[in-house]
Amino acid sequence: MRKLIACLTDFGLKDYYVGAMKGVISSINPSVQLIDLSHEVPPQDVSAAAYILKCAYTYFPPNTIFLVVVDPGVGGERKGIILKTAEYFFVAPDNGVLGLISSEPQRIIHLTNRDYWLSSPSHVFHGRDIFAPVAAHLSKGVALEEFGAEIDELTRLPSLKPVVEKDAILGEVIYIDRFGNLVTNINRESSRAEPAWRGMVSPASHEIDGKVVVEIRGHRLSGIKGFYSQVEPGQMLALWGSSGHLEISVNGGDAGRALGVERGEKVKVYDYQRSHLDRGICQKNRK
Amino acid sequence: MRKLIACLTDFGLKDYYVGAMKGVISSINPSVQLIDLSHEVPPQDVSAAAYILKCAYTYFPPNTIFLVVVDPGVGGERKGIILKTAEYFFVAPDNGVLGLISSEPQRIIHLTNRDYWLSSPSHVFHGRDIFAPVAAHLSKGVALEEFGAEIDELTRLPSLKPVVEKDAILGEVIYIDRFGNLVTNINRESSRAEPAWRGMVSPASHEIDGKVVVEIRGHRLSGIKGFYSQVEPGQMLALWGSSGHLEISVNGGDAGRALGVERGEKVKVYDYQRSHLDRGICQKNRK
Amino acid sequence: MRKLIACLTDFGLKDYYVGAMKGVISSINPSVQLIDLSHEVPPQDVSAAAYILKCAYTYFPPNTIFLVVVDPGVGGERKGIILKTAEYFFVAPDNGVLGLISSEPQRIIHLTNRDYWLSSPSHVFHGRDIFAPVAAHLSKGVALEEFGAEIDELTRLPSLKPVVEKDAILGEVIYIDRFGNLVTNINRESSRAEPAWRGMVSPASHEIDGKVVVEIRGHRLSGIKGFYSQVEPGQMLALWGSSGHLEISVNGGDAGRALGVERGEKVKVYDYQRSHLDRGICQKNRK
Repeated sequence: MRKLIACLTDFGLKDYYVGAMKGVISSINPSVQLIDLSHEVPPQDVSAAAYILKCAYTYFPPNTIFLVVVDPGVGGERKGIILKTAEYFFVAPDNGVLGLISSEPQRIIHLTNRDYWLSSPSHVFHGRDIFAPVAAHLSKGVALEEFGAEIDELTRLPSLKPVVEKDAILGEVIYIDRFGNLVTNINRESSRAEPAWRGMVSPASHEIDGKVVVEIRGHRLSGIKGFYSQVEPGQMLALWGSSGHLEISVNGGDAGRALGVERGEKVKVYDYQRSHLDRGICQKNRK
Repeated sequence: MRKLIACLTDFGLKDYYVGAMKGVISSINPSVQLIDLSHEVPPQDVSAAAYILKCAYTYFPPNTIFLVVVDPGVGGERKGIILKTAEYFFVAPDNGVLGLISSEPQRIIHLTNRDYWLSSPSHVFHGRDIFAPVAAHLSKGVALEEFGAEIDELTRLPSLKPVVEKDAILGEVIYIDRFGNLVTNINRESSRAEPAWRGMVSPASHEIDGKVVVEIRGHRLSGIKGFYSQVEPGQMLALWGSSGHLEISVNGGDAGRALGVERGEKVKVYDYQRSHLDRGICQKNRK
Repeated sequence: MRKLIACLTDFGLKDYYVGAMKGVISSINPSVQLIDLSHEVPPQDVSAAAYILKCAYTYFPPNTIFLVVVDPGVGGERKGIILKTAEYFFVAPDNGVLGLISSEPQRIIHLTNRDYWLSSPSHVFHGRDIFAPVAAHLSKGVALEEFGAEIDELTRLPSLKPVVEKDAILGEVIYIDRFGNLVTNINRESSRAEPAWRGMVSPASHEIDGKVVVEIRGHRLSGIKGFYSQVEPGQMLALWGSSGHLEISVNGGDAGRALGVERGEKVKVYDYQRSHLDRGICQKNRK
């Protein structure tokens, strides 16, 4: 089996950066297979990269090496590391970009051995000069301890978890994809384990969580759908997205543009019953 | 020979979607070769994807598997299929995206056998959960009949053919490329077979169809050129594009932006002689 | 070792062009490895492509074949060529796009032998019909002399070198990357060899060239830094970029947008001492 390196960066595709990194890898290990996870992470957006990685990595074959370079602190204090889990390897700056990997870390190596870097590494492009050659040498079977000393802790990002109240879940938009789908931090598995949620919806309704209301910027969406065409074209809906998160979408359209929202926008999930009460109040207030 | 899977989607390159799909394929068949046809089809634009596929697929080696996922109806009624022609395989939703493949279909399989899908497929990302694993298993030599029952008919798109009148061909812009070239539905081979066309141009003029006038949004372009630099930089021209379609271009510029036109814009091809008559009429009307 | 073809074009990723080219290559040599250097060169921007190639090619393994297609003159007079240097092969139109390759050319071949082209090549897409098949045949070991006759001269681009005065270096912005970093034509190695420069800075200061002032659009940046976080987030700085050129950047931001500059913007580097004199004059003028 060829070894596989999957690349995730914010380098974009118009410059020479991705090409140079791949050239370095091919120079060290010509038989490695390279797959692009994405190079269009918004510039220096560590949390977007962490989210993308979290959604994708478990679909790759065991022993895949993830080369993750979103690195606003390049040249400064932050460490370069290898993270090894039971199934995968990750080569990255330790700035939180690996902070959403759910597998337990088995070993974390601080990259200090310059034997596996390009000579005279620049201070501004560790992707090419440090991370790419380390990933390439790793793909050739160099032992982890060769790259540097073991360390204990990984930098984590602030928790993505929503706030769970007695009768509502308060989340937010954490990512907006190319289709304008608004991905929230409300995760299907963990939310449904909450007593608040279990009180709201019938457990078997995996097609439609019909008793739930999803509220975003004054819009109340009734129920959580299973797929887009359960509403008319152009209509807004809430559904469980492919990453297991609650998403707000427009069937055949772009919810981000339709609502004019950005990352951080608040999203509230609560019981249908309460929604009716609210509406009563709202109508009263209008008079 | 390694097996080759060529991917065409509207997933874009900023999200985790393409990466996850490739991870799934690599997990099932690590030695497969992956080539990106494009992932920047405009969101949910089935006919743009059909056009891109039509232009590219014949250049690939025999037995290439095309994984085509532009799938606005995901989760709903539309079927997932494998189309086999004499030379190629196509894995896609049956929504017209394969409707411009000119090869005769040999077999069409309706994807129903869940043994070749990911377990618990989502309702919103069949690219990852159904189409990618099916393509990967196909690349490993699983027999067509394993994937589901044979069906007879493929969903077709509305015909791309222009209207041919006695002394003119009435077409439209069906695609605008990154350079702003306006690709029309007027195809070189089929148009030239028309009596109307044969009356207009001399058969040997493959460099310049000089007696023809191409009209778009009030602009009259004289003759069909062979390449861009046959007009001055910044000048507009009609020429036979690389896909065999009539295109309107600006040498060194962007015709789409220059004319401000969109897909669907009407294009008329007619005889030089008639153009002179028309011009007479126009001038009369102006008075 | 598999043979490697690295592709650099201005075709973009939304159309069928890159896919068709890769299909052609795979049809001729199915075991070749394809790496994308970039396909997002601005349309028809030969000098941007030349810069990207210059920055990247030395990182690739020996015998890599670079397929470079930025070709505004396609179909016209310009030649198609293979350039062979001691370590690499380049297949491209001879329009200057190979003009910044610093290795001495060993042989230049004018592509004339149609046996290695697709049959009936179009006049508008030599990337698919001539350059891709030539690169693929080259990767299979076809001898250079097979492709056409040897020629002596390569088309060069206007020099990128800055103007060196007695006490200042006058350069300009030659490239703006996705992060908004302004890459200038002031190269670390060659500038520092100038007497003007040596008078300005202490030779050992590879972290910060502290005595230098970099001026762009009225902004005076003090010293040349080593990496971004040597200034506060949002602050502008000059630093030696990863390609060895002087760059103007904003830590965590976009210098191009902040300054509103485009390619061609003037940049001046001079001695700290002179800057003080200037400032004195400026203040006087303000009164």
